[in-house]
Amino acid sequence: MNRRMILYVLSLIMRIEAVFLIPALVIALFHGEGSAAMGLAFSAALLIALSLPSLFLRPAVKTLYARDGFIIVGLSWLVISFFGALPFYFSGAIPSLLDCFFEAVSGFTTTGASILDHVEELPQSLIYWRSFTQWLGGMGVLVFLLAIIPMAKGTGYSMHLMRAESPGPKIGKLVPRMRRTAGILYAIYVGMTLLQVFILLLDGMPPMDAVTITFGTAGTGGFSVRNNGMADYSNFSQNVITIFMALFAVNFSIYYMLLARMFRQALRNEELRVYFGIMIVSIIMIAIDVAPMFASVGEAIHHAAFQVSSLMSSTGYATADFNLWPEFSRTLLLMLMIVGASAGSTGGGIKVARIVILWKTTRQSIHRFVHPNSIQTVHMDGEVLDEGTVRGVNMYFGLYVLVLVCSILILSLDRFPMEDSLSAVISCMNNTGPGLDSVGPIGNYGGLSHMSKFTLICDMLLGRLELLPLVALFAPSAWKG
Amino acid sequence: MNRRMILYVLSLIMRIEAVFLIPALVIALFHGEGSAAMGLAFSAALLIALSLPSLFLRPAVKTLYARDGFIIVGLSWLVISFFGALPFYFSGAIPSLLDCFFEAVSGFTTTGASILDHVEELPQSLIYWRSFTQWLGGMGVLVFLLAIIPMAKGTGYSMHLMRAESPGPKIGKLVPRMRRTAGILYAIYVGMTLLQVFILLLDGMPPMDAVTITFGTAGTGGFSVRNNGMADYSNFSQNVITIFMALFAVNFSIYYMLLARMFRQALRNEELRVYFGIMIVSIIMIAIDVAPMFASVGEAIHHAAFQVSSLMSSTGYATADFNLWPEFSRTLLLMLMIVGASAGSTGGGIKVARIVILWKTTRQSIHRFVHPNSIQTVHMDGEVLDEGTVRGVNMYFGLYVLVLVCSILILSLDRFPMEDSLSAVISCMNNTGPGLDSVGPIGNYGGLSHMSKFTLICDMLLGRLELLPLVALFAPSAWKG
Repeated sequence: MNRRMILYVLSLIMRIEAVFLIPALVIALFHGEGSAAMGLAFSAALLIALSLPSLFLRPAVKTLYARDGFIIVGLSWLVISFFGALPFYFSGAIPSLLDCFFEAVSGFTTTGASILDHVEELPQSLIYWRSFTQWLGGMGVLVFLLAIIPMAKGTGYSMHLMRAESPGPKIGKLVPRMRRTAGILYAIYVGMTLLQVFILLLDGMPPMDAVTITFGTAGTGGFSVRNNGMADYSNFSQNVITIFMALFAVNFSIYYMLLARMFRQALRNEELRVYFGIMIVSIIMIAIDVAPMFASVGEAIHHAAFQVSSLMSSTGYATADFNLWPEFSRTLLLMLMIVGASAGSTGGGIKVARIVILWKTTRQSIHRFVHPNSIQTVHMDGEVLDEGTVRGVNMYFGLYVLVLVCSILILSLDRFPMEDSLSAVISCMNNTGPGLDSVGPIGNYGGLSHMSKFTLICDMLLGRLELLPLVALFAPSAWKG
Repeated sequence: MNRRMILYVLSLIMRIEAVFLIPALVIALFHGEGSAAMGLAFSAALLIALSLPSLFLRPAVKTLYARDGFIIVGLSWLVISFFGALPFYFSGAIPSLLDCFFEAVSGFTTTGASILDHVEELPQSLIYWRSFTQWLGGMGVLVFLLAIIPMAKGTGYSMHLMRAESPGPKIGKLVPRMRRTAGILYAIYVGMTLLQVFILLLDGMPPMDAVTITFGTAGTGGFSVRNNGMADYSNFSQNVITIFMALFAVNFSIYYMLLARMFRQALRNEELRVYFGIMIVSIIMIAIDVAPMFASVGEAIHHAAFQVSSLMSSTGYATADFNLWPEFSRTLLLMLMIVGASAGSTGGGIKVARIVILWKTTRQSIHRFVHPNSIQTVHMDGEVLDEGTVRGVNMYFGLYVLVLVCSILILSLDRFPMEDSLSAVISCMNNTGPGLDSVGPIGNYGGLSHMSKFTLICDMLLGRLELLPLVALFAPSAWKG
């Protein structure tokens, strides 16, 4: 293990986080939010101070192994979340350090689960910082590092980091050089973000809302900045958000293909078809189910589309209290949270690609059972699925169920009804945000015990990093030699 | 596909079922239950009449392929459940044919879920028949056939049938000849059944109760024969039932090893250790959780042990309304239902062996992720786990989740709370019986819609036959050539 290199990358991440605190600090000074400014400035100063010593220990050997990649990613997310929580704490805006950490982890992992009763009581600068953490977490902090900082050429370094941080069963390079791939991904991300802000501003949304709501959409986080959630905005704005939530949960390599005029390849992508297929069928079924609750069929479709796009993309915004919808819609929405977004997007969940792989391998196994002598390989997007990917997907499911079961058991000690615990764990592990009942779209996570909050913090991190980096971090054998 | 042979075996099964109806008929005549006697006699006559023509078409070719085995098992269970439901219907004891079928499938699949409000209103003979179906279903109707009827030597015929009907990730032969294996299994089964009846009689339980309760224990079915469930019996009897429920959910090959004086091999069995390990840890945790609800710690342990043994073995008897226990205990009990019994036992659920295999393969995959160059095989009971078994387990999980998700969605259309639908599906799919809330230990399945009942009937059959025979039955390619 290359400890010097790990320390070096961590301190880089810390300096970048200090820089990212500056816009919030400017807003705090502009609005005259004294304690928030103090908290933000102090956090930034602490990040700089603690990361300075590493300037004097440039690592001689820059080689990183896959294992180091996982350790760097796991530690980076813990560090960035811890320091990202400090502005809430130092400003006194959120009194409990655990609650601050919950809110920061929720932001960076793009979950959007909150312990706040009334978000509007937060200073503007902290609302901005809270929303911005989602944007940073969406595409990944190490991918950002790779995109802007040239280093360690040809050591497989960047590949290992990208693989550990990017969601999905396998990671594809867009172009031969990983650093350019990271740059292209961030360019698309910034471009789409600016487009959404622009459209929302055109519709007359207040600038601060347009920016923060877009951060939550782009990162598929879903922190609302109003006590009423999305209900304060126009139908047009809501529809714009519906569409962008769905788009940010699409594999970004599809956008690269479109930019590179590889239209046929993009449209033939199996995950893309299944993703939009599930989404459209779900919207239709839920719209039929909730139609009697709304004045018109159009309104039912409007709200069904928003909620489906929000929960399947793992964003978690809400225009209606879907917790009060009929059981069928509630159950289906909970299942869509578990399915989640596409691989290689900013969204959470198991990912459509993994569901497709699981379905294809299961179907093939049935075929082999009925016809024992037949040999049939599993294809995806015209290529044969290799054993490693399939094994990875199976391992992911095993770990996923294990974490889910343990978390639900721990939360059940709080004696909330089973539906609350179950939906809280599902929502946090899939980085969605709202669950059902007490943690539903108009509830929050403030009422849970310390133990439950800590468990959900672990679930959010495990979900965002797709289990492996954190499991590898805590596997004793990873630290040997 | 050997259609003649399939028809031949099916008609054999029908004639055997007719014979099995006789004891219930005798009880009906003895108690002077006229309509029940008529219903039983008419059902038996119908079975004989419909199966007679096959006597004239002995199949020339007796070769069966794996596929034929699955089709025979799938069809046999449908046929035996359909005709087993007729006595309830013809006697007028249960007015709806769907409800009769539900009750019969619940019995043969050893689920023990009931649509009856007051079981004591049934005639004695039908209570007996209902309990007896569990005993027949426990070890399997085709295994019974193999044990008693010599035929089709050396065609792999018996192996295919055993494999398709016996629960677990793989089927081991006890002795080289499959027919003797089936005979030994049934001998152990009958022996343990007689032992339990004998002990319960010694404790002063009424003979009819001792027999029917033992049928429910041996088959891990759990149909109660009193409105109060198990609460009417002495503490000693309850403890006897606790122990026998746990024992009938142990892999029967362990008993064969003990009889063959292979003590070391039996005690080293990994599934056995994990099975009792989970059971003991669960009893301790639940006893601590429910201790404040009972007069003494001893009483808490007594009820915790009964409920854990009952639900993990997939029996479903209850001495206490565990639905009213704290959330932690309720959640843990629901999870124990999913884990289920040991492979090669009469119990349901995913089976401990599959959980062990899933855990071992996941752990190995993590190890390979952290140390990509290491090669490590997965062992179980000292042998290397082959690819086929692992693939089978993964396929099973894929199908399991698919069936679970679809069933819960269908049940949610009934607008019962999510916990009811979720626990109903889990309980029926794992062949346990009671769920939570409206389908809890003091509730029943009578209030569900036709659609939900039909779905749960499918779940019970899919669970008992471990998904594959029924999936193979409905896979169009199975019927070709």
